[in-house]
Amino acid sequence: MTTTFSSIATQLEAQAIELPSWAFGNSGTRFKVFSTPGTPRTIQEKIQDAATVNRYTALAPKVALHIPWDTVTDYAALGAFAADHGVSVGTVNSNTFQDDVYKFGSLTHTDASVRRQAIDHHFDCIDVMHATGSQDLKIWLADGTNYPGQGDLRGRQDRLADSLQQIYARLGDDQRMVLEYKFFEPAFYHTDVPDWGTSFAQVSALGDKAMVCLDTGHHAPGTNIEFIVMQLLRLGKLGSFDFNSRFYADDDLIVGAADPFQLFRILFEVNRGGGFGADSPVAFMLDQCHNVEDKIPGQIRSVLNVQEMTARALLVDTGALRTAQDAGDVLGANAILMDAFYTDVRGDLAAWRESRGLPADPMAAYAASGYQQKIAADRVGGQQAGWGA
Amino acid sequence: MTTTFSSIATQLEAQAIELPSWAFGNSGTRFKVFSTPGTPRTIQEKIQDAATVNRYTALAPKVALHIPWDTVTDYAALGAFAADHGVSVGTVNSNTFQDDVYKFGSLTHTDASVRRQAIDHHFDCIDVMHATGSQDLKIWLADGTNYPGQGDLRGRQDRLADSLQQIYARLGDDQRMVLEYKFFEPAFYHTDVPDWGTSFAQVSALGDKAMVCLDTGHHAPGTNIEFIVMQLLRLGKLGSFDFNSRFYADDDLIVGAADPFQLFRILFEVNRGGGFGADSPVAFMLDQCHNVEDKIPGQIRSVLNVQEMTARALLVDTGALRTAQDAGDVLGANAILMDAFYTDVRGDLAAWRESRGLPADPMAAYAASGYQQKIAADRVGGQQAGWGA
Amino acid sequence: MTTTFSSIATQLEAQAIELPSWAFGNSGTRFKVFSTPGTPRTIQEKIQDAATVNRYTALAPKVALHIPWDTVTDYAALGAFAADHGVSVGTVNSNTFQDDVYKFGSLTHTDASVRRQAIDHHFDCIDVMHATGSQDLKIWLADGTNYPGQGDLRGRQDRLADSLQQIYARLGDDQRMVLEYKFFEPAFYHTDVPDWGTSFAQVSALGDKAMVCLDTGHHAPGTNIEFIVMQLLRLGKLGSFDFNSRFYADDDLIVGAADPFQLFRILFEVNRGGGFGADSPVAFMLDQCHNVEDKIPGQIRSVLNVQEMTARALLVDTGALRTAQDAGDVLGANAILMDAFYTDVRGDLAAWRESRGLPADPMAAYAASGYQQKIAADRVGGQQAGWGA
Amino acid sequence: MTTTFSSIATQLEAQAIELPSWAFGNSGTRFKVFSTPGTPRTIQEKIQDAATVNRYTALAPKVALHIPWDTVTDYAALGAFAADHGVSVGTVNSNTFQDDVYKFGSLTHTDASVRRQAIDHHFDCIDVMHATGSQDLKIWLADGTNYPGQGDLRGRQDRLADSLQQIYARLGDDQRMVLEYKFFEPAFYHTDVPDWGTSFAQVSALGDKAMVCLDTGHHAPGTNIEFIVMQLLRLGKLGSFDFNSRFYADDDLIVGAADPFQLFRILFEVNRGGGFGADSPVAFMLDQCHNVEDKIPGQIRSVLNVQEMTARALLVDTGALRTAQDAGDVLGANAILMDAFYTDVRGDLAAWRESRGLPADPMAAYAASGYQQKIAADRVGGQQAGWGA
Repeated sequence: MTTTFSSIATQLEAQAIELPSWAFGNSGTRFKVFSTPGTPRTIQEKIQDAATVNRYTALAPKVALHIPWDTVTDYAALGAFAADHGVSVGTVNSNTFQDDVYKFGSLTHTDASVRRQAIDHHFDCIDVMHATGSQDLKIWLADGTNYPGQGDLRGRQDRLADSLQQIYARLGDDQRMVLEYKFFEPAFYHTDVPDWGTSFAQVSALGDKAMVCLDTGHHAPGTNIEFIVMQLLRLGKLGSFDFNSRFYADDDLIVGAADPFQLFRILFEVNRGGGFGADSPVAFMLDQCHNVEDKIPGQIRSVLNVQEMTARALLVDTGALRTAQDAGDVLGANAILMDAFYTDVRGDLAAWRESRGLPADPMAAYAASGYQQKIAADRVGGQQAGWGA
Repeated sequence: MTTTFSSIATQLEAQAIELPSWAFGNSGTRFKVFSTPGTPRTIQEKIQDAATVNRYTALAPKVALHIPWDTVTDYAALGAFAADHGVSVGTVNSNTFQDDVYKFGSLTHTDASVRRQAIDHHFDCIDVMHATGSQDLKIWLADGTNYPGQGDLRGRQDRLADSLQQIYARLGDDQRMVLEYKFFEPAFYHTDVPDWGTSFAQVSALGDKAMVCLDTGHHAPGTNIEFIVMQLLRLGKLGSFDFNSRFYADDDLIVGAADPFQLFRILFEVNRGGGFGADSPVAFMLDQCHNVEDKIPGQIRSVLNVQEMTARALLVDTGALRTAQDAGDVLGANAILMDAFYTDVRGDLAAWRESRGLPADPMAAYAASGYQQKIAADRVGGQQAGWGA
Repeated sequence: MTTTFSSIATQLEAQAIELPSWAFGNSGTRFKVFSTPGTPRTIQEKIQDAATVNRYTALAPKVALHIPWDTVTDYAALGAFAADHGVSVGTVNSNTFQDDVYKFGSLTHTDASVRRQAIDHHFDCIDVMHATGSQDLKIWLADGTNYPGQGDLRGRQDRLADSLQQIYARLGDDQRMVLEYKFFEPAFYHTDVPDWGTSFAQVSALGDKAMVCLDTGHHAPGTNIEFIVMQLLRLGKLGSFDFNSRFYADDDLIVGAADPFQLFRILFEVNRGGGFGADSPVAFMLDQCHNVEDKIPGQIRSVLNVQEMTARALLVDTGALRTAQDAGDVLGANAILMDAFYTDVRGDLAAWRESRGLPADPMAAYAASGYQQKIAADRVGGQQAGWGA
Repeated sequence: MTTTFSSIATQLEAQAIELPSWAFGNSGTRFKVFSTPGTPRTIQEKIQDAATVNRYTALAPKVALHIPWDTVTDYAALGAFAADHGVSVGTVNSNTFQDDVYKFGSLTHTDASVRRQAIDHHFDCIDVMHATGSQDLKIWLADGTNYPGQGDLRGRQDRLADSLQQIYARLGDDQRMVLEYKFFEPAFYHTDVPDWGTSFAQVSALGDKAMVCLDTGHHAPGTNIEFIVMQLLRLGKLGSFDFNSRFYADDDLIVGAADPFQLFRILFEVNRGGGFGADSPVAFMLDQCHNVEDKIPGQIRSVLNVQEMTARALLVDTGALRTAQDAGDVLGANAILMDAFYTDVRGDLAAWRESRGLPADPMAAYAASGYQQKIAADRVGGQQAGWGA
């Protein structure tokens, strides 16, 4: 290992990961949503929790909103509230899957009036972006069908292209659209944006401000995700990540929890493709569900996982790696990669955090802070936030 | 095709498929549950709907209950209500996944008091079975963990064995327990009964009254389900089916909708292994979610799919098949199987239904009956049934 | 079913499916290749067998070559030989996976001299195309790596783009290149063209004469293949099919054998997207391995399967389907599709074949012809063809 | 981390991993087998290579044979040869997939004479075991079918049970049989021993000397392998491991290369279930293919990977883990596991190796030894070993 921790510290300083407001609310499966004491009732309380994550890690300066779950009457005030807590508003996520009219589709619907409603909802989201200073509009489309024959795959794709064009045209000069793809769920036969190829084809037809959003949990079994990261960076179309991890489907577990080596390889390709740094177009976000674990420490653990794996990925001796690759030294090249992955960076990271005035162990510091007990005591009554509340 | 439709008609007459009461309520995904006009508010209304399916098809004489979703004060009266509508109470399904105490497990929980509560719930279910004349107790266990290390896999398995033993001991002489397995969901790292091998090992340790329940949607991608059907029949442990179909995970689509040829192969192995007929220990049930389609016709379509594929499976010329197999005639043997699968039995089935006083086309007859419009008009107000309501 | 068989007969007449020369040679797995009496020793004998398939079906007027497996000294003479047997030379398939220099890649190799050799091989293939009148150059690239770190994913992709550009520039005015993608195998960590998105991005960068080849066995578990068919047709980039079927990986079984309903859905989307007919850019090919079944009847069965499913797909009442889709009638729309799938077209097809001077049952006619016995008796000695011989 | 390296050193000393003789021969895919200078021509040369792995690691005292690939005339002499090189003969692997008569099955074949031949082959293997002092007979059965209908699933299973019974009856008092299962390949529709449940049911019917062999690459996508390890240990039926790793199918990559965290979890469950130590019935073997990497260092890397992950697994603070589990502390329990996984044990292991007279870095020591150059120079001419040679 010729690359040293000190040589990568500057890169780590620049790391910023958006937290999704909904990660602080209750979530679960179709079978049960367990509630937890202290769960936020309002977007303001979600922002307080997100700001807490940032206070202990300095890794999470932005909070992504979800409309309408985070609807308020005064978005400028919301932006100011966030700023007061040391964070800002990040990506605005639209929602076209919970209104009854969207049962058979939204931007792809055969009924022009439903498409109109869905497009208008995105216009509203763009208004929120203007009011809050958010730069990215994220579209995750739940559209799809459950049975062969239920919908016309081709017609839906054409209508999607048309709807996206209208939304794209509304974007401000400094605003972007990122189009997320997902293998399946909630649709069980076909999904209208099921793979990176479809998202890439659709956003390429729109223009430079449209990019692909890669959710790490949204792929078929066995998919080589770091390859897609490489390809999208190469094509100039990787707009953002939704980080999480999975063993089976879209499990939305803590990023790095299921396969830390995969996360390492993904972050290695991000670095290889210029995805870190000030000029990178890539926004890094979490998109997770803390169904059974505590939410705030779950988010702290998540951003730390990304940080720790980023450090390992940056430690790869790329010069030696290239030499081994060019020599056809399979085991040697692999060993150089694994050497970085197996390096225990936790001690160096702890010391470096302290040097920056942060707790060496953010998990322990949060646990000792009493914050969890305080919100459990304070946030009594009202309606705990969840998906749709 | 030497086997003729008339030669299989008697076998078809005996076909009986249990309907799950919850199929008539609203269901959906974690993202949204769409409601529908006419959805039942009570178990009585669910039974009315199930009886309607039976009236048009003569295929569905039993209704499976789910406790506590279908809790009533007087089960004997409920049984009588069902009888009045021409059906009876089938399998009783327990539920140990919706009480807050089950967040980290039920029959496998480390806390003996939680296990006690879960075991007692099954005792209550057995009481319901006595009161209603139900013969089968079905246990689908949602127990599992989301993160490596969260639970002790081995200890959980041992506790499961102990809990099941207690429940088994409570069964009446004519009662059975069927233990369902599921690959994943709602747990996303490990599931305590994830595969047929685990269910088989657990029920084998209990005794003759414990059997395996095979849900066709609960397997890993690519699993050869008909092989498991064959194996469990061979081992004398196939207690029941939960029929549905899937493209991805536990999609709970209409049986036969995703891969009709797979359903054909499954039913062929049922027949091969003696799973049809009066002496068969196999109970046939549906377990589906009609998230976007109408529920009653969805159930009618489902039992018809099973009937149509059963007919095709029974039409296989097994003598010719055996000859081709023994001769190593790969293409010939496959052709004999496909010949039955490709035979359009719909006309023969329609005529045969009419000969029995049933509508030739149950879907059309139901649509023309006005039942859907009537329940939509009548069932106004109250709380529509769903999962947990 | 308002669409009648007679109304689709003209479309069926135009159907043409290329046979791969290698399907007539021996094939197997890494564990064993079983040989069969009568297996061709030369490309001429393969063409004789392919012509036999065409003689019994009128479905297979072209034979795809694989270079160097089918290398001859006089390609003009080979073309004439094919013509004498009533067929012509179809797609020319290149091979950059069996020379020792390709151990770590071919068109993607870090060593320019290896890339040069691989590019030159494609120039040779183009020469074969000119000499035989073949129009399509098919590139299936086995390039990839087995271990993380072994290769530089990004650099390999860039080199691939450069190599393809050189090959593309060599194409004649009436010639095309089709780039096949494959999920995995023979590479087990990453594959350089693993998905349709990568193939699409690469061929889009080349120009109008470069298209995507979709092999139905080359996808991740659960992938909705008909969606990709729809999308590539929509994007104008579906150049060809490699038909086969699979239960697990790239099993290369007879098309339609594993999931006939999936084949039906694929062909329905081909029709929906204008992939049939004189103006279609889509070439239909088989790419299969008859490891345990007889090869010639295996190919006959395959083209018949495509024909039978095409007939069913053409029978879909698209007007009624559109009406049901627009009405949100999920079960109705699905029923219209299934109605066509379940229609037994075999009798109509048999009669129609006879009306065209073809055997009603090509499988039986071939079996009765004595051809198999004749080649088994004649083709004694020499080296049976296989992969690499 | 309260568990220290010194406290686990004794356990590490006992670690022993069998090497498969075939790992030193050439292997590849159906597309190409690349040869390498220095590849053994004989079983003696394979044993020399295996002994070399053991010399640098002290981890590999046994060599598994494959019959007939390793057939010799004098097995006693072979055992002595091995002893002279500091190793002994381990598991004897039978082969019923390469003789032409096994095209449609071996122990499951419909033809009694073919079953007889396959059973007799196992008797021969048992003779080899007696002659060499080998204790385990491993049966991996390639039997299966490629097409629905090709075989009678049930009859094949019954014949398998009968054949196994005959082989089992021939075992000596100190000999065992381990029955391996595999999801698919070389059969592509059904495999006769496809899952642990089938292997478990078959060996349970035989007796105490029959156990299950778990090959880590032989599962459906997403399967939780450590759960199966736990279950088989709990049921007393885990006889042996075939270690390797995979991204897709049975890729046979170096163990730990694809998902090191999974290997860690597997070894943690081995320890949890008493699978380490003198009394354990579990035999640890490699079963890998070094298609593109050097074979001897590939094997060294493999046993080191197992050793390193075993060390990490032994370091888990099981007391603290149990406490966190019992408290429902999801994140805490997970962190305790991850803490051990992320601990860099490589320095401690290097020092410990040196203290035992072994090279601190076996990979570097082997590379510097000149052994590879020597065998490349010496092993010229003859037929390099492969699968079937």
